[in-house]
Amino acid sequence: MRNLSMMTDFYQLSMMQGYLDSGLNDDQVVFDLFFRKNPCNSGFTIIAGVDSVIDYLENLHFSEEDLHYLREVGFRKEFLDKLKQFRFSGDIDGVPEGTVMFPHEPVMRVKANCFEAQLIESSILNLINYQSLIATKAARICEAAQGDAVFEFGLRRAQGPDAAVLGSRAAYVGGCVATSNVMAGRKFDIPVVGTHAHSWVQKFDSELESFRAYAKTYPDKCLLLVDTYNTLKSGVPNAITVFNELRAKGYEPKGIRIDSGDLAYLTKMARKMLDDAGYPNATIVASSDLDEDKIHSLKMQGARIDSWGVGTNLITSSNCPALGGVYKLAAAEHNGELEPKIKISDNPEKITNPGFKKVTRIYDESGLFSLADLIMLDDEVIDESQPLTIFHPVYTWKTKTFRRYALKELMVPFFRKGKSVYEKQTVQQVRNHAQLELDSLWPEYKRLQLPQIYKVDLSEKLWKLKQDMMHQYKNN
Amino acid sequence: MRNLSMMTDFYQLSMMQGYLDSGLNDDQVVFDLFFRKNPCNSGFTIIAGVDSVIDYLENLHFSEEDLHYLREVGFRKEFLDKLKQFRFSGDIDGVPEGTVMFPHEPVMRVKANCFEAQLIESSILNLINYQSLIATKAARICEAAQGDAVFEFGLRRAQGPDAAVLGSRAAYVGGCVATSNVMAGRKFDIPVVGTHAHSWVQKFDSELESFRAYAKTYPDKCLLLVDTYNTLKSGVPNAITVFNELRAKGYEPKGIRIDSGDLAYLTKMARKMLDDAGYPNATIVASSDLDEDKIHSLKMQGARIDSWGVGTNLITSSNCPALGGVYKLAAAEHNGELEPKIKISDNPEKITNPGFKKVTRIYDESGLFSLADLIMLDDEVIDESQPLTIFHPVYTWKTKTFRRYALKELMVPFFRKGKSVYEKQTVQQVRNHAQLELDSLWPEYKRLQLPQIYKVDLSEKLWKLKQDMMHQYKNN
Repeated sequence: MRNLSMMTDFYQLSMMQGYLDSGLNDDQVVFDLFFRKNPCNSGFTIIAGVDSVIDYLENLHFSEEDLHYLREVGFRKEFLDKLKQFRFSGDIDGVPEGTVMFPHEPVMRVKANCFEAQLIESSILNLINYQSLIATKAARICEAAQGDAVFEFGLRRAQGPDAAVLGSRAAYVGGCVATSNVMAGRKFDIPVVGTHAHSWVQKFDSELESFRAYAKTYPDKCLLLVDTYNTLKSGVPNAITVFNELRAKGYEPKGIRIDSGDLAYLTKMARKMLDDAGYPNATIVASSDLDEDKIHSLKMQGARIDSWGVGTNLITSSNCPALGGVYKLAAAEHNGELEPKIKISDNPEKITNPGFKKVTRIYDESGLFSLADLIMLDDEVIDESQPLTIFHPVYTWKTKTFRRYALKELMVPFFRKGKSVYEKQTVQQVRNHAQLELDSLWPEYKRLQLPQIYKVDLSEKLWKLKQDMMHQYKNN
Repeated sequence: MRNLSMMTDFYQLSMMQGYLDSGLNDDQVVFDLFFRKNPCNSGFTIIAGVDSVIDYLENLHFSEEDLHYLREVGFRKEFLDKLKQFRFSGDIDGVPEGTVMFPHEPVMRVKANCFEAQLIESSILNLINYQSLIATKAARICEAAQGDAVFEFGLRRAQGPDAAVLGSRAAYVGGCVATSNVMAGRKFDIPVVGTHAHSWVQKFDSELESFRAYAKTYPDKCLLLVDTYNTLKSGVPNAITVFNELRAKGYEPKGIRIDSGDLAYLTKMARKMLDDAGYPNATIVASSDLDEDKIHSLKMQGARIDSWGVGTNLITSSNCPALGGVYKLAAAEHNGELEPKIKISDNPEKITNPGFKKVTRIYDESGLFSLADLIMLDDEVIDESQPLTIFHPVYTWKTKTFRRYALKELMVPFFRKGKSVYEKQTVQQVRNHAQLELDSLWPEYKRLQLPQIYKVDLSEKLWKLKQDMMHQYKNN
């Protein structure tokens, strides 16, 4: 990733100069990155983008040209001298990339001085929000495809080059098996796929001639796009003609792709034609403005589709194109001590959880299924030899007691004193982790429509701290 | 812009190798880039991204590492040797960045050999689709704001770094007056704005103390965020206290920003409080999940907002996060001649316009208002001394005759024999062009809801060619 140091909101720099003026720039603060709502009606969110965040922080510095520009837009010399030496020197903890998370849980926790913690907000949010969104969308689409292969085909509609490339990576993390994007394939070692477009067919004097030419170049991986003129009257019959010619030469054809029309009807008819012609193993790939709802509907209609190419609706998460991750002050140094901080709002959903916190996941005894999460203060310890009772943070009479359970703290160290201590993962490792995380969720949480709400409770100590602080502000 | 040569769909490379095998790689072809639908219920689309496309094409080449990767994924030596020498050598015409365009009109026309024309499809679409989408969305938001300043604040929710930076540029082209994104500001010389966040207020022991500290650092541009605790009971009164202190020192405060709550009510009350306190010139900036519909509604409610900060819904074009631009074969060399090509579909909207074409805009005599557009074959000439009659391409009895009019061909040369011949524009020039283009549209085309449909007709010659080709395919 290229240097993104200047990719910050102007107000971060305004505040930094202000902190310097006020002598607060070295005060330690704690910010939590979290989101308030799963995207796309999902029951969960897969966190992605951690790798980009670590690259960003390791590269963070300002060039002479950057400082020159900042001088021009009005920043003062004393501040720019500080920026010149700027390196990130704080501590960050966060959940490993590919972890399944839920609303209000800290996904990342930044403990640094005001100056540094403020600067990095905008870029960290940018990198985590988009990539987590696409990983989650991909997981939903793969869920709808019920184990069929899903290919990411969104390059041409992605919101710019980074969205295409980082989105392709996130889609792979979320469960896609391959991408059409060669740059993403090369950069992250993701399998790449693709055959030919309508223009290939149009370029030749006839569809049959174009199929023969394709089969000549790719005899061992012949997958033909059959909807340029007329899928059932021309495309599939011509494909079968070429498949017969290939088989006569000792090659087994791969199958066909259909990119338009009534996919339920066309794939059922095409399947029958291929079967009758002796090609029961020829696969049918479908693409055409697909998303999880259309795939679900096609499955319900008995469409005969073996794999799915998904473009626009995946790479932009079209029905919900932003994950609303935020970065909120949770604690700040006061006379040398970290004091919890809270943001009050008329909207109870928007009141933040104060203090220096962690997240603990409660699993069943086998450690295979996650049962609930607990947001706690960092110094709290659960006695695992005792039953554990948790309660709903609003409807506090709703309690649940676990007698046999296993616990896992979700955040791990990313940075200590500005040095990355996180072992970088390959995309394959991140994808494997995400798949295990998804496997640990009961199907009810992964349902496409109206998923069950996963329990995220507060420890009693955190809950009391929050109540006290809310009452205190109310009485002020 | 960094090198994007590998940012292509895998099938482009598959087809290129196939064209080489079939001896067709040097055949000339013509592709049109166009879209079928304006985004976001808009009556028009502002084209943006041309600058990025020109950079992309000028940089186009494959490194040894690229070729090594392509060898690993199965491409053959003969093909890779061709790629090693690859440079774009074709002709491209297109509309200048900032031009207002309509469905089915060629926005860009690529004439090159098969090999080159195919490769560049994916990246060109990626760059034009997103940036045109955001320029158009910004124009709608600015239309709703009725001349008030609109700031682009979307960095943290943009779909990756490029979306943030290129989206910020596109938003400025579409009419925004500034951005919060420092990288975009520096890169494209766009005005940058920003004051402070809630965290600034939280960091201090009291809101008043935080406002005083801000005013101390920025006495001449003091704009305070007043909704951290309670906008009307605490934020605005504390702001007024600090404004009084500033004025006593000879500084005039800038105003306040409100980022949550009922913006209609809060801004009306805040306006009254500021006016009563002697600050009728203090501006009120609003932000909080705004889009063109919310701004329109706030205007209708008489909200007292002077400028608008728009984030997520602008930078992702949230209600329509993709412009569906396509790139379709319009002509191909056959025995040394360019033959028109058509793509047939059951859906009449999806049938392409064949041939080597151009677009002519018909203006009123003054040249100030655009009246209709005509898609024509490239060699057609209109006799401007005669009345001009155009007709609807489907309801052909719908005709319109212009007696006094002015004409303009919209496409200009971008590349000739692979060399850029397009004079690069500054962002300010592009923005000025877009604003003139918008000014040339009657308000009925710019209406937010159900805009009038702008007339885009085919010349008689093109219409007949298309009819003939459709009948020919139908009878085959």
